[in-house]
Amino acid sequence: MGSALHVFGRRGASKQSFLDCFLSLDKSSEEGGQAGEDQDLLLAAAYVSDAQYNRNVPFETSPRAIRLYYFYNHWTMQVAIYFFICVDLSLALFEVPALFPLPFLATSIAEVLCLTAFFGRLVHFAKVTPQMVFWKDTKNICIMVTIVLTLFDLIIYGSLEAVNIHSIRWSRALRPVFLINFPESRQIRRTFRSIRNTLPDILYVFLLFVFSVLIFSLMALKLFGDRGLQTVEGSPYFTNILEIAFELYVLVTTANSPDVMMPAYNFSWWYSLYFITYIIINTYIFMSVFLAVVYNNYRKHLKNEIRKLAYLKRHKMIEAFNILKVKVGTEFVVMEARWKQLARIVMPHISGPHLELLLRISDEGQKGHVDKMNFIRLADLLNIQVVTINIKRHPLEDWMPRVYQSSASLLVQRMVRHRIFVWVYDVIILINAIFIALDEKNPFISYAEWLFLSLYIIEILLKLYTYEPRAYFGRKQFWNWFDTLIIIAALVATVANTTIQSARKYNSQQILDIVLILRILRLLRIIVSIQRFRLIVTTLINIGPTILTFGGLVLVVYYVFAIIGMEAFHGKVQFFDPNFTTPNALVCGNPALKDSAFARDRYCKNNFNDLASSFIVLMELTVVNQWHVLAGGFALVTHQAAKLYFIGFHVVVVILIVNIFIAFILEAFFVAYSLEKSEVETAIEKKIQELGVGIQEEEMQDGKLVDNMDAKDSGFSGDDGDNKRKALKGLYFRIASKKYRTVDALLQQMFESEIAPEDEGPSLDEILNFSPGDVYPKNPNFENSA
Amino acid sequence: MGSALHVFGRRGASKQSFLDCFLSLDKSSEEGGQAGEDQDLLLAAAYVSDAQYNRNVPFETSPRAIRLYYFYNHWTMQVAIYFFICVDLSLALFEVPALFPLPFLATSIAEVLCLTAFFGRLVHFAKVTPQMVFWKDTKNICIMVTIVLTLFDLIIYGSLEAVNIHSIRWSRALRPVFLINFPESRQIRRTFRSIRNTLPDILYVFLLFVFSVLIFSLMALKLFGDRGLQTVEGSPYFTNILEIAFELYVLVTTANSPDVMMPAYNFSWWYSLYFITYIIINTYIFMSVFLAVVYNNYRKHLKNEIRKLAYLKRHKMIEAFNILKVKVGTEFVVMEARWKQLARIVMPHISGPHLELLLRISDEGQKGHVDKMNFIRLADLLNIQVVTINIKRHPLEDWMPRVYQSSASLLVQRMVRHRIFVWVYDVIILINAIFIALDEKNPFISYAEWLFLSLYIIEILLKLYTYEPRAYFGRKQFWNWFDTLIIIAALVATVANTTIQSARKYNSQQILDIVLILRILRLLRIIVSIQRFRLIVTTLINIGPTILTFGGLVLVVYYVFAIIGMEAFHGKVQFFDPNFTTPNALVCGNPALKDSAFARDRYCKNNFNDLASSFIVLMELTVVNQWHVLAGGFALVTHQAAKLYFIGFHVVVVILIVNIFIAFILEAFFVAYSLEKSEVETAIEKKIQELGVGIQEEEMQDGKLVDNMDAKDSGFSGDDGDNKRKALKGLYFRIASKKYRTVDALLQQMFESEIAPEDEGPSLDEILNFSPGDVYPKNPNFENSA
Repeated sequence: MGSALHVFGRRGASKQSFLDCFLSLDKSSEEGGQAGEDQDLLLAAAYVSDAQYNRNVPFETSPRAIRLYYFYNHWTMQVAIYFFICVDLSLALFEVPALFPLPFLATSIAEVLCLTAFFGRLVHFAKVTPQMVFWKDTKNICIMVTIVLTLFDLIIYGSLEAVNIHSIRWSRALRPVFLINFPESRQIRRTFRSIRNTLPDILYVFLLFVFSVLIFSLMALKLFGDRGLQTVEGSPYFTNILEIAFELYVLVTTANSPDVMMPAYNFSWWYSLYFITYIIINTYIFMSVFLAVVYNNYRKHLKNEIRKLAYLKRHKMIEAFNILKVKVGTEFVVMEARWKQLARIVMPHISGPHLELLLRISDEGQKGHVDKMNFIRLADLLNIQVVTINIKRHPLEDWMPRVYQSSASLLVQRMVRHRIFVWVYDVIILINAIFIALDEKNPFISYAEWLFLSLYIIEILLKLYTYEPRAYFGRKQFWNWFDTLIIIAALVATVANTTIQSARKYNSQQILDIVLILRILRLLRIIVSIQRFRLIVTTLINIGPTILTFGGLVLVVYYVFAIIGMEAFHGKVQFFDPNFTTPNALVCGNPALKDSAFARDRYCKNNFNDLASSFIVLMELTVVNQWHVLAGGFALVTHQAAKLYFIGFHVVVVILIVNIFIAFILEAFFVAYSLEKSEVETAIEKKIQELGVGIQEEEMQDGKLVDNMDAKDSGFSGDDGDNKRKALKGLYFRIASKKYRTVDALLQQMFESEIAPEDEGPSLDEILNFSPGDVYPKNPNFENSA
Repeated sequence: MGSALHVFGRRGASKQSFLDCFLSLDKSSEEGGQAGEDQDLLLAAAYVSDAQYNRNVPFETSPRAIRLYYFYNHWTMQVAIYFFICVDLSLALFEVPALFPLPFLATSIAEVLCLTAFFGRLVHFAKVTPQMVFWKDTKNICIMVTIVLTLFDLIIYGSLEAVNIHSIRWSRALRPVFLINFPESRQIRRTFRSIRNTLPDILYVFLLFVFSVLIFSLMALKLFGDRGLQTVEGSPYFTNILEIAFELYVLVTTANSPDVMMPAYNFSWWYSLYFITYIIINTYIFMSVFLAVVYNNYRKHLKNEIRKLAYLKRHKMIEAFNILKVKVGTEFVVMEARWKQLARIVMPHISGPHLELLLRISDEGQKGHVDKMNFIRLADLLNIQVVTINIKRHPLEDWMPRVYQSSASLLVQRMVRHRIFVWVYDVIILINAIFIALDEKNPFISYAEWLFLSLYIIEILLKLYTYEPRAYFGRKQFWNWFDTLIIIAALVATVANTTIQSARKYNSQQILDIVLILRILRLLRIIVSIQRFRLIVTTLINIGPTILTFGGLVLVVYYVFAIIGMEAFHGKVQFFDPNFTTPNALVCGNPALKDSAFARDRYCKNNFNDLASSFIVLMELTVVNQWHVLAGGFALVTHQAAKLYFIGFHVVVVILIVNIFIAFILEAFFVAYSLEKSEVETAIEKKIQELGVGIQEEEMQDGKLVDNMDAKDSGFSGDDGDNKRKALKGLYFRIASKKYRTVDALLQQMFESEIAPEDEGPSLDEILNFSPGDVYPKNPNFENSA
């Protein structure tokens, strides 16, 4: 018993064969005959595919341009370009100051190669898109300018190097431009646009905030400057206006609270009022206002982009429709055969039943053609992942039905399905946790390790015995995979650990550490058992793609700051082995750090001597705490103005980007929440329900499926035209991965459900010039404001 | 020229005379005759007044109960109860450990007095409200239980004290119960309810978070426990699972970053990956999720409350209508005379023109009666502040018209109105700022001080010469008041400063400090000149009332924690004068603190030895940084379990309350924003516009008013019935303080604009049992989700 899953219609699965398709059609078009029609089909398919993936590239419609466009969108091209971007960015690891130094010649050749690839991609793009559009697009101009600047810089640096003059490779800070500006990084670019749009709004708040800090600095100077107070380190307290302003800025970040207050507070308790007022105004209120402004802008901007995307998608689908339409009676339609050809070009791996289902949805009356409104939905329909479920029996039941159906076997199966089975294993995991925490030198405990492992393996085997294995490891059974992988990892880890310990020769630190971590990660299984935990983790995983975009943004900003930091601070602070306690090691190899907090806290390894170290320092600065110690240290070894670098980083990363991150998560959370409450049903879901071939996700997971339907194995052979209903019978569909949609997709769907199906939207120019202000309704209602 | 303002219809202005009214009606009702009708009017007025102030107390409708209810709502009673609450809360200042010690007898007598007052208030309330309702209300039960417990505790403590046994006054921690549970603290109570409702949702996230911290602790133990690493202080690094868990919890708050990482990072750079993963998961993701959950719940809850309030208000107005209605033709209405009587009882100080305006709005057809729909709006109409503007000429123009209208005088006036005049003074302020920053010992600079002051005074005199003084200092001319007050304060400060310096005898520190601050605050004038700054500050001031509610909430939590902290930690840490450097002073009088970070950072004054110090420590804990040093210090002088107190404070204040504060500000900001974009016009605003007697606020402020209308002084005598149009002529109305509404009022208004005027809402029981889940629409739309 059980069910076998087969997933088709996955995003991206189709990419492989665009090329095949394009090549075959290419041939056929040369043979003449229906070449024109094929060409039309290819063009329409390009529009549909653009709509499906939300691509937004205006391309020329000549046959050659279309073929080049298919090639441009091919996945190998995209992988290649990302590969070159990665190589280009990672060059910083090998350039002076390097983690793994390579000669200048090697890195410069690699860089020129990358630039050539970028230029090639750009030329390809220029061939696809109309000249006018190409030269108007700032993205392309940006890439070209950056390529030229980089070559220029390479030549100057190389020739100066040849005569032994060291200069600065400033163009390295421009490398992220390639990552941002290629059309594939739409998400990162959108975030940057969002930041840019936020700037004017945030600027005045920031100025007022700076004004407030300055006023408070003046007060502090007047109040404390003449008192002769001293800090804990014995230096004079609040005597210089610039230092005060810096200290107070640090207080906004809370990094020096309460130390900055203590001397004044020790002097008289009522000075604490000054600091409390300062903290309430600047730390709490201003920082919240920054969040509010950033969030508000993010929201506005997001809505505008979504609206734009939705209208562009519709626009493309209408273009595609206009190419394929024929007049039947009074209205224009697309004939069924044409429609099927189109779907097969856009998604070559689509299976018969899936295509049949889509057709049933699009051609509701079974009239043999698809009308405009239904045609427009095609892009969305193709994006929905549908799983066909073929009910199958457990293999063991086939092989030895008598044993599998024996009362003992049935008892085991009932036991495994019982709640108590789960609880028993939860208790085992908890006991295991305690054993891990205990000292593993004890031989009894290391034996227990094996006991636990065998218990886990028995659990999996029992489950596989009870549930159909192909169903249990179905593509979308995330938690089963998670569970099994953790146990396999733990098994490998324990075996590896024992081998290493018994061999005693090989003793790699890293492997041992990984083994340790894997053993502990096993405890994550407890999440699988608790429903609420699973829900939270699922929500977090849904937010995952959004967080990754954010990761790209952070990478860009970090990279630029790291390059600048390395140019400014490399070699100024040295790290010595902790056991090495010469005076030089204690001041990080720089006498300027004598008696500084930087040296006292042993921050010598927080330096800009290579890319990895720089990234770690920047991470520490992002976390904010002690950033003033780092800033102070680097100011001591260079110049006080170095603090501006650190303040700049704080403003950009903590005030702007971290707030955008929080806005990201808040928004993702709210969208997920409001959708959980409602049911934005898509046409396909409704149709599956109507046809009675739908299965609820929950039924699947609990194995209840078996009780609800006949265990019938159906050889399906669709496409016969007439006996469709019969053909669909015995096969069950399920909308896969409802949970794994992105925030974007959800919002777009919600927006589309609001625009009327017959609304063709504004013209292309209007769409491209939407401003965020338009999104707000003239009379806000209660629901959307609060 | 100019205009005189007269404000009437202010909230609260009417309270004074409820009592008079009630007494006079009391007399007349005894005279018989129309006693029954008066009684009805009084009851209806009570409903309307409740609706107007959003009061939500079910009261009995017997004549005696109504009179008691009026008395219950009288402002003197409310002030008295707040006075006793303040006294009760501030008793902690005088009880051991005290800032100003008083004998136990004195504080206990004061406390018993307060308790008596609370009990009296409760008895009064019991007389007003039906018995059933009274005993069902948890608020009343809470207060009674707390009174009993406090008396109980007082007696036990007193008797033990008499035989010289010291015990704990635990009931002091219950005092905030009175603040929360009296009906007047609706806002604070709502926030508490919001927190309570958030708890179940946040609990699972919190458990998952704790689970994550524990898993990471186990990993840290296994990874670093056996390495023999040392912290900067030389203590073993990551060897005890409990200490690791605490350190990692501290890392979530970022307070020990990057110190906690450094030993491992120094050992091998790749251990930093462990910490980076930890920070991303626990600090960034989990903390954002906490904010999202809290914010989401706050929103839901707020909407639900608003809906409840709006329906309750409508419900009360319908009750009032049903009491006063008479049948005219086919429909029930309230006659004009009755309506006027009612309005005069609810708002005794209402002026003739204002009442006339309200009647014109309510009785649109001038039929002599008010129908149900218009009657229901009365509560809102009364809440709107209307300013009548009586155009008046400048007094100088009256006294010496020839001089005031001379070309020299007109030139001065034009000059003052010119933009350049503002810019010149902005430059002067900036120069002044530089002078303040410079050393004031220099005699030249202290003379300049006088120059600046006189320049400012000349500015104000010139403005008063140009604009009509009564208009310039109108009640709602916030920025003019602000400007003038700052200059007067600076003048007083400078004079005081000079007097003190020349007298040289009196040299109070505090006065000198205040003088210094006042002189610097003068620079705030720059805000007045920059339009964008003014806008931001106005928004912040609008949020003000909301922030005050939040202040009440913080006070309650701080108070409870302070009392617990004082009982647990008082006397354990002593503060000595900073110049006093005996070994004892260096360890804060407690040898247990030797070599601790607490003593090294000189945190001795951060102790729980009196209420004020406790509050400052709690403030520092709220700011988070270095909280682990404080926690560690107090754990050393008592027991490691003391850290639980600090962790508990962090969870309650930073994870719950600060997030609610951020939610507050975000929401306030968004509501303000969406209203700025739209125009939720109220009936009164429309009517004023229709009648052509409205003035835009902007016209007022820029003094352009003068050009737009005739300078006509109109003696107005309304109430004449027939010649209303004539009566209103020559008088101009303005909706005052549109900007100064609260978020609540705005939301309520938005909600009301969505429910149909004829919708009587659900029944009272249904209203009181609204759940937040109901608020969400079944199909969320694009606007409200993003």
